[in-house]
Amino acid sequence: MDALRLIAIDWGTSSFRAWAMTAAGEVLDGRDLPCGILSIEGGDFDAAFESAVGDWLNAAPDTPVIASGMITSRNGWLETPYLAMPADAAALAGALVSLMTRRGRAVHFVTGLARDAESGLPDVMRGEETELVGHVAAGGCDGLYVLPGTHSKWARIAGGAIIDFETYMTGEMFAVLLEHSILGRLAVQGVPSQAAFGEGVRVGGRDGLSILSAAFSARTLPLFGRLPGADVAEYLSGLLIGAEVAAGLARHGARGSAPVTVIGRGDLARRYTAALSAAGAEVILAEPGRARRGLVAIARRAGMI
Amino acid sequence: MDALRLIAIDWGTSSFRAWAMTAAGEVLDGRDLPCGILSIEGGDFDAAFESAVGDWLNAAPDTPVIASGMITSRNGWLETPYLAMPADAAALAGALVSLMTRRGRAVHFVTGLARDAESGLPDVMRGEETELVGHVAAGGCDGLYVLPGTHSKWARIAGGAIIDFETYMTGEMFAVLLEHSILGRLAVQGVPSQAAFGEGVRVGGRDGLSILSAAFSARTLPLFGRLPGADVAEYLSGLLIGAEVAAGLARHGARGSAPVTVIGRGDLARRYTAALSAAGAEVILAEPGRARRGLVAIARRAGMI
Repeated sequence: MDALRLIAIDWGTSSFRAWAMTAAGEVLDGRDLPCGILSIEGGDFDAAFESAVGDWLNAAPDTPVIASGMITSRNGWLETPYLAMPADAAALAGALVSLMTRRGRAVHFVTGLARDAESGLPDVMRGEETELVGHVAAGGCDGLYVLPGTHSKWARIAGGAIIDFETYMTGEMFAVLLEHSILGRLAVQGVPSQAAFGEGVRVGGRDGLSILSAAFSARTLPLFGRLPGADVAEYLSGLLIGAEVAAGLARHGARGSAPVTVIGRGDLARRYTAALSAAGAEVILAEPGRARRGLVAIARRAGMI
Repeated sequence: MDALRLIAIDWGTSSFRAWAMTAAGEVLDGRDLPCGILSIEGGDFDAAFESAVGDWLNAAPDTPVIASGMITSRNGWLETPYLAMPADAAALAGALVSLMTRRGRAVHFVTGLARDAESGLPDVMRGEETELVGHVAAGGCDGLYVLPGTHSKWARIAGGAIIDFETYMTGEMFAVLLEHSILGRLAVQGVPSQAAFGEGVRVGGRDGLSILSAAFSARTLPLFGRLPGADVAEYLSGLLIGAEVAAGLARHGARGSAPVTVIGRGDLARRYTAALSAAGAEVILAEPGRARRGLVAIARRAGMI
């Protein structure tokens, strides 16, 4: 592999992806392994790293390595400090944290971002900043971005830099309420109606609504025969995503103005797109998977390639 | 028991209380048993009833029996329809639903209340209406009442009748988030600081706050060393109760006007009292346990005594 000039790694909670690349960012080889940070036996990230990409480094020992994601969190290989905003590829390049492996290989970690740690409520991301930088590098415009997930992230990009973001626990809230609260009791398996999710979005988006009281309607509506058991999960999903979208648009000020970019695919991206559209936002759907592009942009700024 | 003229039963999800009373409502005997509706083997409520108060009825077979609580819910002895509001002792007396036991004893059930079942989101209560009627019978004033619990109820009383109410799932939300979500991971056992609950209340009561995002601060504050692990549960409790109180006062319009009556005792009542006070409401703390008084008032209106 003569042309190998950069190894880029996106190491998340449940997944590990790595690419062997040329100086131009062309992919020579790729790995997609199930060794997310939660699955590393005994926390031996060094051994997992060696096992995953050691052959590339044996073939070209001086290749620089850049990595980002939850691997820099408290439960990861090396807990790195958070970077403040605004943050772009250059700022992230300037904040790389390096570690020497037992085999003597240098790994350069992209650190996560924090919002407003001293005043107000702190918020954190690790990995999404690299994905966002990848979108900017791919020509993504300034504006509001939504990254759906268990913990969705809303981020504002201005002048090509991430200037603000906020986390919503919506996906996890949905899962714990459906599995562990009274709201799951009247939910039954079955084919839900097309309308149930939208009805939840409509209710969840109401002005002045408190999810602490509105969520109870996922129990009372079926009690009153106004929501079939097979629709309860869809309705609750709509209710929570509708509430998130209303709060996110109100807070980040994009209602009726610039388009909102949803970075995601599949069912969850469709849900957010539908809820944002129902709230009157213009939506651009962007494919995820730009972490590699972000890693290349940061590595380039750092002079690694 | 010559003077026995009424048997009143408060039969809830996890408790069963019964009183043998005179026509004047004086208590001749009382039972407090752990046979809540969830604990009745095979759903044989008839047998449980006979075992609990059969001896009273054997001694005075014609004594009328009145019962209220979750016993009239879908998982209870007899699912009764909900009554609309406004509802007072007379309206509840007019809506009693009777059932003949296998031994030929008539039991008269107080039915629950529903809000706005046809338009908007439905809401339901079973048992709290009897407690509230008991407070009115004991001289409780018109105004806003809060009954803390796993599902707290906010109720408005006007002209001695319940005219509106709303359920908040705050207690259950707290339990499932702490036990089953990421928010419990940084929580540790220990002696919490006095300030943690109040700090949560302060944050939870902020204007325009979404609990879907604010809840994440129960993770980020400890991550930043700004909240000890021993304080996480207190902070989260304050955050949720603070959000409930802000929403409840905004919706039911009592902020800065008439006092709010909290019906409860112990730790939970103290939390609600503190959160309401922090939000600027004048609070009256009322002891719970007026279900018996409410049952007597309804029985009297029904001509049972």
